[in-house]
Amino acid sequence: MDRIPILKMGEHLLVTIQVDMHDQIALNLQDDLTNQIAKYKAKAVLIDISALEIVDSFIGRMISNIAGLSRILDAQTVVVGMRPAVAITLVELGLTLDGVRTALNVEKGLDILRTALKR
Amino acid sequence: MDRIPILKMGEHLLVTIQVDMHDQIALNLQDDLTNQIAKYKAKAVLIDISALEIVDSFIGRMISNIAGLSRILDAQTVVVGMRPAVAITLVELGLTLDGVRTALNVEKGLDILRTALKR
Repeated sequence: MDRIPILKMGEHLLVTIQVDMHDQIALNLQDDLTNQIAKYKAKAVLIDISALEIVDSFIGRMISNIAGLSRILDAQTVVVGMRPAVAITLVELGLTLDGVRTALNVEKGLDILRTALKR
Repeated sequence: MDRIPILKMGEHLLVTIQVDMHDQIALNLQDDLTNQIAKYKAKAVLIDISALEIVDSFIGRMISNIAGLSRILDAQTVVVGMRPAVAITLVELGLTLDGVRTALNVEKGLDILRTALKR
């Protein structure tokens, strides 16, 4: 399996990252996401990383890239379910995920989007 | 990673199966699901299998098991995103997934649940 499924839920797209990312999966994900944002006119992308116990600079950069791509396509990015250890690693790596909103879980992420998109 | 994340969304739990299942992952998933159904009083479990290109009798049985467990705990199970090839294999294996509802994608699955839970 070299594609991560993207679930369409109303105006949002939900991606759950469970597998170890490598180059091809990451590229496919960016490709699929941009296509689906355009196709469904999605307003937001939720990325659930609760399954990730560790991250490296590769994943951090990938999340930043996705956020950048989404922003250009007029969609917000919310990263949900980050574990404390992952947050520590990201900050230690100097990746502050600028422009990415975060929430503790999917429900809170959806709440953020509901408020943000109402404006 | 030997656990599949379970996302709580309102009254539903959402599971996206992306990795090759083996015994321990399947057992952990059943364990986690039953615990979370009880903890959150969830009314339904959505299992997205759009990432699965092939299934075997093991996965088929696991889905049946999850449906059985959920039913006992008063929650419905909806399997979403099944590929045509997977459907063919399941029928050929003689697994008709009794008691499991299916939908073509998560949105349609949520629609089914919305109607079913209103009654």
